[in-house]
Amino acid sequence: MSSIDIAYIESDANPKVKRWKRLALEPRAVKRERATLLEGLHLLSVVLEHPKAEIAALILSEEAVSEAHELVEKLAERTGARVYGLTKRLYDQISPVENGAGCMCEMAIPAAAAPEDWREADVLYLDGVQDAGNVGTLIRTAVAAGFATIAANVGTASIWSPKVLRAGMGAHLAAHFVENLSPETFREHYRGRIYAADARGGRDLFAAPDYADGPCAWVMGAEGPGVSEAAIAVCDARYYIPIESSVESLNVGAAAAVCLFDARRRRLLKHG
Amino acid sequence: MSSIDIAYIESDANPKVKRWKRLALEPRAVKRERATLLEGLHLLSVVLEHPKAEIAALILSEEAVSEAHELVEKLAERTGARVYGLTKRLYDQISPVENGAGCMCEMAIPAAAAPEDWREADVLYLDGVQDAGNVGTLIRTAVAAGFATIAANVGTASIWSPKVLRAGMGAHLAAHFVENLSPETFREHYRGRIYAADARGGRDLFAAPDYADGPCAWVMGAEGPGVSEAAIAVCDARYYIPIESSVESLNVGAAAAVCLFDARRRRLLKHG
Repeated sequence: MSSIDIAYIESDANPKVKRWKRLALEPRAVKRERATLLEGLHLLSVVLEHPKAEIAALILSEEAVSEAHELVEKLAERTGARVYGLTKRLYDQISPVENGAGCMCEMAIPAAAAPEDWREADVLYLDGVQDAGNVGTLIRTAVAAGFATIAANVGTASIWSPKVLRAGMGAHLAAHFVENLSPETFREHYRGRIYAADARGGRDLFAAPDYADGPCAWVMGAEGPGVSEAAIAVCDARYYIPIESSVESLNVGAAAAVCLFDARRRRLLKHG
Repeated sequence: MSSIDIAYIESDANPKVKRWKRLALEPRAVKRERATLLEGLHLLSVVLEHPKAEIAALILSEEAVSEAHELVEKLAERTGARVYGLTKRLYDQISPVENGAGCMCEMAIPAAAAPEDWREADVLYLDGVQDAGNVGTLIRTAVAAGFATIAANVGTASIWSPKVLRAGMGAHLAAHFVENLSPETFREHYRGRIYAADARGGRDLFAAPDYADGPCAWVMGAEGPGVSEAAIAVCDARYYIPIESSVESLNVGAAAAVCLFDARRRRLLKHG
């Protein structure tokens, strides 16, 4: 059915399989080895549109659907990466989902953005957001709103873990990242204004005069604790979203959507 | 440690335990028996603030933390509901989370809102949103934005399932619900305007003239397919959120946050 050459693997002891298991299960391995796994038709089709993505290997399950075969074939032609065929049992061990389409790739993690790349960019700064699904959704929302640089402190979930990639729905490939960035170092290099989304107080986001002129960064904290004191200390202003008193707060993904798209709206209406 | 009387249960065959297992695991049982389970300190503390909530039973794990004991004691005094103590093994079988605080309650599902309750209300209409986490977050966002009536068609996840309740973080108790409502029946009774959030086209949300005067309903579709044709057919207008072309779409929770809070902003700025 396929014209590509597939290297079949059936053994748990295979060094490639062992490596992929580490990448799938240990966020630290992703950081240490500077490589990650992208699973599924949607992510692989986004990879196909990004020629700069460095693909180290393509992986097919023995139960991969025909669309997965076609996509992997195109990626193999484009990138020259080797294609590996895994038994269903091995594939399932490294896949973040059950009953997926059966295709995956190993990708090298791009180099972190340097301060000169982001000091005048629009930035989403994640301050201790630990839930992988939330982090992925936040990246997707930020890129959609034009905040294509994502910075994160040490307490935030690993940006390139397979779970975060999955929730990001491919937005990772259109973004720039700086991980392990302390609020102090961020403030030191950043030339725009830094805002905290803070349910505890500050200014009313909607009533505020135009805050979105020039580069700006939004800081989002974890559910529960919110933005940390260390991050608040480097912010130019705090804003709250005016919500009904019958609920305590918004989910961090919803709060970011409101803040980032409020900035986007102000810019589009001003310049658009 | 506690002054309340606890009925201890150790057997899988106990009819109460069997009932709670059904409610925990079968969304249909929740609908059929018009009862559900709320788990954890946060949800139970929200219940404590809502005297109208009908509590049928309070449930403690043998490993419940002391804060859980205190909360259950207050709820028992307030509601007169019986308190049951479960072995860790039994509790874990009905709990939606691992390693929780160890407290839960069985609550009667409130009656569905009648058309006269919502025909002039601000409404979020869920059109086939199947993911329980998304539905819970959508409810939380809607109530926070002042859209306290949530309507849903048959294809949407069961509003009162324990997973949806958990993601809703207590917002359910401040909302009114109509489930199994077809777009046609909704249109027939609803006196406000109905808008679809539709990534495929329509008007630019931010550039649109004031659409939020008077009652309005936002229709949100599932990830992927978006709003159905049947729902589009009853809408007065479709709006798209102007996103960067580097991502295909927003997560449904993020899209709803942008639309519902855009309406809220317009109203707050107009009416002070």
